[in-house]
Amino acid sequence: MRFDHVGVATRDGDALADLFGSLFDTPVAHRETFDGLDVTFLDVGDGYLELLEPRTDEGPIARYLDGRGPGLHHVALATDDVESALDAARAAGVETVDDSPRPGAWGHDVAFLHPDSTGGVLVELVEHA
Amino acid sequence: MRFDHVGVATRDGDALADLFGSLFDTPVAHRETFDGLDVTFLDVGDGYLELLEPRTDEGPIARYLDGRGPGLHHVALATDDVESALDAARAAGVETVDDSPRPGAWGHDVAFLHPDSTGGVLVELVEHA
Repeated sequence: MRFDHVGVATRDGDALADLFGSLFDTPVAHRETFDGLDVTFLDVGDGYLELLEPRTDEGPIARYLDGRGPGLHHVALATDDVESALDAARAAGVETVDDSPRPGAWGHDVAFLHPDSTGGVLVELVEHA
Repeated sequence: MRFDHVGVATRDGDALADLFGSLFDTPVAHRETFDGLDVTFLDVGDGYLELLEPRTDEGPIARYLDGRGPGLHHVALATDDVESALDAARAAGVETVDDSPRPGAWGHDVAFLHPDSTGGVLVELVEHA
């Protein structure tokens, strides 16, 4: 396993991309609108910061912002086989958010583990297409 | 810049190290007691997960756990020159937690930026000794 990205909930992805870019030299690697979110991936070495800005007042990121404010949202680990990784987590008794891998941003296959089972950390498993 | 580690606030670092190790094959790279915390670094590719367990009811991690519960606490970016990176952040108008670099866990020189200036994300700058 290695870090794929760290997800950040934000109300202004453009401003945050500009700030991190100027402070840390993290150019924009990819932008898209996905699942009601404006998503921006910033290059950070071999991984990414993923900025998640909701386009509406609904959905999990909007609720997260309402409840906890902007900031770190999840950590994503890269795997060659997200289905096996999800099965292994479930076999170990970990509660999962997703029953099976699903399409994520940037064309990846993803699955989330439930933070109640992983020390309060929302973990995303990511398999690059 | 590249990811150095992601910091996690926890009430049971040993249990979380065991869980992540079994789920994600993240062996313990380093353990120490530092600044009132039991600190465990887990290998995740080229970076680390840093588990932070307070030894008392006082200090910033204990307060974080009381206020927000366990989970993601900060993201640390590696730099070759933490003093220059801190100066550059301040020059860009970023509020900082530390006025100057200070000794951190594992013998690193570190400085924190204030999350109010960085989109709610607590950013640590890390220079390896």
